[in-house]
Amino acid sequence: MSDNARLEQQIAYILQIDQAKNVLRQTHLTGHGRRENVAEHSWHMAMMAYILKEYCDEPIDIGKVMLLCLLHDVVEIFSGDTYAYDTENLKTQKAREDLAKEQLFSMLPAEQKAEMIALFDDFNEGNSAEARFAKAMDNFQPLLLNYSNHGMDWKDRDIFAEQVFQRHEATKFSSQELYDYSVRLIAEHIELGNLRRYSENG
Amino acid sequence: MSDNARLEQQIAYILQIDQAKNVLRQTHLTGHGRRENVAEHSWHMAMMAYILKEYCDEPIDIGKVMLLCLLHDVVEIFSGDTYAYDTENLKTQKAREDLAKEQLFSMLPAEQKAEMIALFDDFNEGNSAEARFAKAMDNFQPLLLNYSNHGMDWKDRDIFAEQVFQRHEATKFSSQELYDYSVRLIAEHIELGNLRRYSENG
Repeated sequence: MSDNARLEQQIAYILQIDQAKNVLRQTHLTGHGRRENVAEHSWHMAMMAYILKEYCDEPIDIGKVMLLCLLHDVVEIFSGDTYAYDTENLKTQKAREDLAKEQLFSMLPAEQKAEMIALFDDFNEGNSAEARFAKAMDNFQPLLLNYSNHGMDWKDRDIFAEQVFQRHEATKFSSQELYDYSVRLIAEHIELGNLRRYSENG
Repeated sequence: MSDNARLEQQIAYILQIDQAKNVLRQTHLTGHGRRENVAEHSWHMAMMAYILKEYCDEPIDIGKVMLLCLLHDVVEIFSGDTYAYDTENLKTQKAREDLAKEQLFSMLPAEQKAEMIALFDDFNEGNSAEARFAKAMDNFQPLLLNYSNHGMDWKDRDIFAEQVFQRHEATKFSSQELYDYSVRLIAEHIELGNLRRYSENG
């Protein structure tokens, strides 16, 4: 099949990213299911973005939002998943992911590599309206799963309400409605005893 | 949270489709991995579509292609997966999926329900260029996984080369390049003894 080296290169990348299906996150599926993997999480975020796009406060290209959702965690094939409340690993996250993005996207033809890196950076820096809405989905999706599981992901990890509120702050830059909903949902968890405040520690 | 019944309705749908992560397909992940689920398969197809869009012979809106990829199997939450070479189940597939799509998409506000049904039908009927390219991805994605696993999915199920060639016919309506590549890949499998012709049966 040597008559199309470019296509062969793209196919090698496509087979490589299959491994995103084996990178596990801390979130559990609804119904107290197994741990979610990166591919599923990304699929779910993209589907949510399309269904909830009316709540975005900025004009967006929804196709680009979906692409950012699909792509945003794929470098974790090499860098591993970093839990949103893991302070130590968060410190090294950017360095690990910068190495991983170089390694992964170098499998693609040069101009596609450049495009994927630009998209990945856009998501992480939140430069575009699309990146901010995709980021809102990245926060809202595990919140909904965790809500359906009565906060078990927080309980298992001893996460406090203040940490959760802080994580969801960014949602308001993209969608006031989804931010307000998130705040109400977190407050409901506190009320139900699924999530503790620092003051209740000990 | 009764101040936004519409958002509540959309969130119920979003939590419902989480179950796509538990619908298993016949394809196995690369590296002779476990069986793939519908959410992962859909994610992979959408990522492939973006990377391979230059090979589509028709003008396409790649955002719509990705949406069709993400959505095309979600009704299997209710109807179950139908294996591409399962003659008996293929006969009832449309009726089962028509019931499932009504059940699933009725969870959404009316105009979103209508839109999702139109997209789902477009994919299955191949009416748009986007649907034809998404369909090509639906065939090409398991072909690549199966190729990486030396044809184990065919061997396990006693699938013949003629059946595989027939399934991939549709790819040529969207991409001659990917169709030619598929044909060469299937021929290579026959050569390697991973796939038998009917004439070699017995």
